Amino acid sequence: MSASFSKIRVFALILTALSVAALSVSAQVAPRKPVAKPVAPAAAAAAPKMATGPGGWIKEFGTMWTFDAPPLAYWKGRYGFEPSQEWLDNVRLSSVRIPGCSASFVSDQGLVMTNHHCARACITAVSPPDTSYQDAGFVSAAVSDEKKCSMIYADQLVSMEDVTAKIRAAETASVTAKQVEQRDKAIGDIQSSCQTETHLVCEVVTFYQGGKYSLYRYKRYNDVRLVMAPEETISFFGGDPDNFTYPRYDIDVTLLRVYDDNQPMHADHYLRWNSNGFKAGDLTFVVGNPGSTGRLLTMAQMEYLRDVQYPATLATYKAQIAIFKELAAKSAANKRQYENTIFGLENSQKAVLGYDAGLVNPAIMARKAAFEKDFRSRIMAKPALSAQYGRAWDNIAAAQTEVASFAVQQQFQGFGGGSALLNFAVGLVRIAAQATLPDSLRLPQYRGAGLDRIKAQMGQNPSIDTELEKLLLAAQFGMAQRALPAGDPFLTAALGGRSPEVAAEALVNGTRMASASARKALLDGGAAAIAASDDPMIVLARTVNPMATRHAMRALRLNTTVSANVALVGQAIYAAYGASLPPDATFTLRISDGVVQGFPYNGTIAPYKTSFYGMYARNAEFDGQPPFNLPPRWQAARSAVDMAAPLDFVTTADIIGGNSGSPVINRKGEVVGLIFDGNIEMLPNRFIYTDEVARSVAVHTRAIVEALRKVYGAARLADEVESAGAKR
Amino acid sequence: MSASFSKIRVFALILTALSVAALSVSAQVAPRKPVAKPVAPAAAAAAPKMATGPGGWIKEFGTMWTFDAPPLAYWKGRYGFEPSQEWLDNVRLSSVRIPGCSASFVSDQGLVMTNHHCARACITAVSPPDTSYQDAGFVSAAVSDEKKCSMIYADQLVSMEDVTAKIRAAETASVTAKQVEQRDKAIGDIQSSCQTETHLVCEVVTFYQGGKYSLYRYKRYNDVRLVMAPEETISFFGGDPDNFTYPRYDIDVTLLRVYDDNQPMHADHYLRWNSNGFKAGDLTFVVGNPGSTGRLLTMAQMEYLRDVQYPATLATYKAQIAIFKELAAKSAANKRQYENTIFGLENSQKAVLGYDAGLVNPAIMARKAAFEKDFRSRIMAKPALSAQYGRAWDNIAAAQTEVASFAVQQQFQGFGGGSALLNFAVGLVRIAAQATLPDSLRLPQYRGAGLDRIKAQMGQNPSIDTELEKLLLAAQFGMAQRALPAGDPFLTAALGGRSPEVAAEALVNGTRMASASARKALLDGGAAAIAASDDPMIVLARTVNPMATRHAMRALRLNTTVSANVALVGQAIYAAYGASLPPDATFTLRISDGVVQGFPYNGTIAPYKTSFYGMYARNAEFDGQPPFNLPPRWQAARSAVDMAAPLDFVTTADIIGGNSGSPVINRKGEVVGLIFDGNIEMLPNRFIYTDEVARSVAVHTRAIVEALRKVYGAARLADEVESAGAKR
Repeated sequence: MSASFSKIRVFALILTALSVAALSVSAQVAPRKPVAKPVAPAAAAAAPKMATGPGGWIKEFGTMWTFDAPPLAYWKGRYGFEPSQEWLDNVRLSSVRIPGCSASFVSDQGLVMTNHHCARACITAVSPPDTSYQDAGFVSAAVSDEKKCSMIYADQLVSMEDVTAKIRAAETASVTAKQVEQRDKAIGDIQSSCQTETHLVCEVVTFYQGGKYSLYRYKRYNDVRLVMAPEETISFFGGDPDNFTYPRYDIDVTLLRVYDDNQPMHADHYLRWNSNGFKAGDLTFVVGNPGSTGRLLTMAQMEYLRDVQYPATLATYKAQIAIFKELAAKSAANKRQYENTIFGLENSQKAVLGYDAGLVNPAIMARKAAFEKDFRSRIMAKPALSAQYGRAWDNIAAAQTEVASFAVQQQFQGFGGGSALLNFAVGLVRIAAQATLPDSLRLPQYRGAGLDRIKAQMGQNPSIDTELEKLLLAAQFGMAQRALPAGDPFLTAALGGRSPEVAAEALVNGTRMASASARKALLDGGAAAIAASDDPMIVLARTVNPMATRHAMRALRLNTTVSANVALVGQAIYAAYGASLPPDATFTLRISDGVVQGFPYNGTIAPYKTSFYGMYARNAEFDGQPPFNLPPRWQAARSAVDMAAPLDFVTTADIIGGNSGSPVINRKGEVVGLIFDGNIEMLPNRFIYTDEVARSVAVHTRAIVEALRKVYGAARLADEVESAGAKR
Repeated sequence: MSASFSKIRVFALILTALSVAALSVSAQVAPRKPVAKPVAPAAAAAAPKMATGPGGWIKEFGTMWTFDAPPLAYWKGRYGFEPSQEWLDNVRLSSVRIPGCSASFVSDQGLVMTNHHCARACITAVSPPDTSYQDAGFVSAAVSDEKKCSMIYADQLVSMEDVTAKIRAAETASVTAKQVEQRDKAIGDIQSSCQTETHLVCEVVTFYQGGKYSLYRYKRYNDVRLVMAPEETISFFGGDPDNFTYPRYDIDVTLLRVYDDNQPMHADHYLRWNSNGFKAGDLTFVVGNPGSTGRLLTMAQMEYLRDVQYPATLATYKAQIAIFKELAAKSAANKRQYENTIFGLENSQKAVLGYDAGLVNPAIMARKAAFEKDFRSRIMAKPALSAQYGRAWDNIAAAQTEVASFAVQQQFQGFGGGSALLNFAVGLVRIAAQATLPDSLRLPQYRGAGLDRIKAQMGQNPSIDTELEKLLLAAQFGMAQRALPAGDPFLTAALGGRSPEVAAEALVNGTRMASASARKALLDGGAAAIAASDDPMIVLARTVNPMATRHAMRALRLNTTVSANVALVGQAIYAAYGASLPPDATFTLRISDGVVQGFPYNGTIAPYKTSFYGMYARNAEFDGQPPFNLPPRWQAARSAVDMAAPLDFVTTADIIGGNSGSPVINRKGEVVGLIFDGNIEMLPNRFIYTDEVARSVAVHTRAIVEALRKVYGAARLADEVESAGAKR
């Protein structure tokens, strides 16, 4: 399995770019139906009433609790669970954040458990020249054999402090832009003085879109070493088809060790290991760093995603998948070349379809509408709150409607279709145009050092597949033709009456953008050279650029309006509900409660856990074909493994990208599992928490120990975690 | 597992009442939206064009071919498969029909293979007083130990003859009703003279709703004995949750033996056994007796089901499930009492939801509409055909629209809500009213001996659960209140301004219908006693009966119109397409081609086969809880069984209820599997064949042999089939 193959699945839970897309006012759009329409009275009337649970819990907001506001009343009311402060402190200090992921200490000798897909860079980097530890797995024979991972560090959250008042005090200006500057400066000051005083890693975290600010202080461990990693065929068994799904049979684990002064660190805080620490129906917790959720999005924002942004994204995926499949069908070499691209696109499509599934579900939207109604009525009931926040929703809706009004034009003017040649032409034209402007009037990516970065990109020499270029351009032009009215200036410029295929053919055949020297000449020649060029791609980019820039700047202004009002909504929610609602995910430490529970699936029921039998079953049932193949040591271990032992399991805990590697713990604070994915039904939880069929997916601690002892000959490590687990 | 528990799953493939419901113009209805509307021009324009495959095959009609019109050109064109007549004859003569199911000879000593759920009555009947072979399984130690099944016989199709011309010749009358009489007489005559001459079982089969008639002659074997049956926990592993689903892990087999003169029969024709007779992607055939399909239904008939009948059925299931769940939640005894009823209702709901899934799927309906357009245009293109058949579709649509116009009223006036007390009252009132009428003017069920049958029912003494009675009545009245306009005479009679709950309470508390003597007095007293009664249920039934009868008679007339025109459509289809379209299922022998193939499911892919690993996995993953428990001999055999051996598999073959027990054969005519179910995605195939995700589910022959040898100590039987398979 190649690197790009596996990178794809990182979508699942590592903090990724995709998760941000849902929250931005991206312009890559084509509308599906009228946009950002207000909730019709009938729909609002039909919406369910808000139900408030113990401790003021509102289910839709989920359970991503912060450690400085643990929901003690809710836990007590819902589960009869009353943790001590010592319990909470130990859990927090046993948890660490690593780049993009979560992890935890699982022995007093600094052993750290995370996902295999979180340690990918390390596993590749420490592989000797003739071996891939991705393929072959790695088991250190002794402590001395553990391999330094230079790119991994571990941050332990040692304290939190509410600094909202300090930041509010700094915001004295009356103009929004100036206020933002003051706030950013205050945040910077707090962070740097903290760092100077404590020598810790200090980070001011924005909660509730600005409703609350906390200073988080981390102890950073820089010496992290690779101890054990299974083969990727085991950590990612079932590959892309099984990705995002359950029942599942992956052992997505990697063991690392934190060193202190070149010795295994003595960990005062770690999670006691329990290989049999829960049963079906039990309360468990996931402790980790969820990256980003959109649960505070307003109805207007969600409708924009549903009606404008996601349809455009999905249409693009669909067109590109069709193109790459067509190419892949032509030869075995093509198949090898494009297979991973197709997998990647299909997985992205799977993810966006999953997010969209929540937005197009009337029951889910009705719950969201009911919440917004309750929320707004709380704000409107108090004159002070109403004056401060009352108009935020309408302001957001108006801005979204305006963005949507030119979203289609902007999408196509932005040339996002994937043609490398046209990207060069657009870059050259924009560099020439933007370079003449003062920084503040430029598009953001051309400001400051951005201009030079983009200039440097013009010198790159990717290999160009002209057949692919033509197909991508023709697909893009075809979509434009269907989406834009006849006579639209973009269509005139791009097609000039030709069919998409003919236009694409002429552009690709006629351009000199594949030549680095031709590009250099245009880059060096500046605006005059661009104006004089007869390269058809330059001509096209030059014609479209003024309108594209106008739309981009207009979207930028509207985006700023949305951001400002989104901040108001965040402050309002904190004013209306306090900390009884967990804030949106911020890639900071959270503790989420959930119950171990199967769910309805495929017309029947999915079990709460899977077994080694199941892994060998799926291998046999696909005749051992990838991605259901087993590495040699797993074939050899067939008779040694306890087939009935648990492998993976599911809980209703509330997770998202960034939670990869989070420990699952029981009431006693013992580690019983390792989060590595959510099922496909969980994707809509990005916007509203649900637990009917959405599940987080974890490796069972028993499976890890079983694999260490029976398959990897790593009794040393199994003994280490189990004996540390027995200590008190 | 109790008898009623298992009876439920018989829905899957045994020929059942449920399959008839879809084809009748039942009045148990409440409309969901406007009915039987013509296909809008836009929808018709968007409909796909008909694609005709090799040999004139039209995919939508599936592959349930008759043996007297095997689709040789289609098989050759699609698969390069050209069977000899000897191949076809051997396959036909190796197949037998048993009551409600299909089966096949699998050795030269008369061994017959069918499903466990097809031999249920026999397995129960031959169990000794102290043992249940359902629970414990049965393996005959020797031929002398095999047990006579008095209720099972096996019919072997020895010849077929087209008798359409003979029947057409008999239909000389100009009045439809008289024609029907003439046809029925001709059919009876043909059957009885055939029986007299040949001593075979003779049956005239109606194909294409009357487009073609064939005389089928069967040799009947009356001495059938039980040889081997597994425990029901194995044959129905996964129980109701897994019913209709795949991946699946059932060994739903029973071995019987046909005896001749008290000796195992020598079978000239049997299917050679192959435990390894196919691989993924291979062509296979299913040979058996599909019961009933509705692929010739017109758009108007399907829209009636979609918009009127199924919504009413589903609403009733939903209400009743809610009631029984409410009762079951009250005590452990209630739970035991109602568990099977709930399972049964949920399974029926699952089935109807499955059928409905096709009707509410615009893509499927568009394909149906495209076919109907093609079909009608072929008829309209020829004046003779147009004159004879051209108006049939509009006649059906008009009748359906009229039925729909009073369907809601009729539904509630019919009192189908499940109250046993009210059923008595309605019966008594109707007996008194119908008995005074001449036979021809009565409701059909009161004609001839029907009246006495219903009178006899009035003397039964079921146990009455008054709490349940009240809940069922209140639910029924509540549905009526929501469905009917205020002031509807039924509502006035039933509620008289009271709430459904109050009315139900008063009716159940006030009635004497629980008393057999009170009922007898009313039965004996006739119309006068009914008229004088002040029993509130009698009063209600008496008030509603005239309108109910009027509507029932009107529906009956419309039903006759639909039937007559449906027959015309059938004749028309045969006139337009000949035998290139397989006729609807008629519980007669068919051969269906299909390919062994997995399918997309649960966000990933289902394998083409399952394994013993998978069965033990599901057992372990549900902690051995029923219906995922394993009987003792399966627990003991854990280490002996070849876990990677195939267990079940799926093909795209075209099956439906009645196909249970059908053999799956390969190109060589060897038996490689045993059909026992379809997946839930197959249910819409009742109306239109699809193969994207619809699959028939079979037991692998290898699994049967593995079980016989390793689990049941029945090497004698495994040797018998395998050595017979090796003979030539």
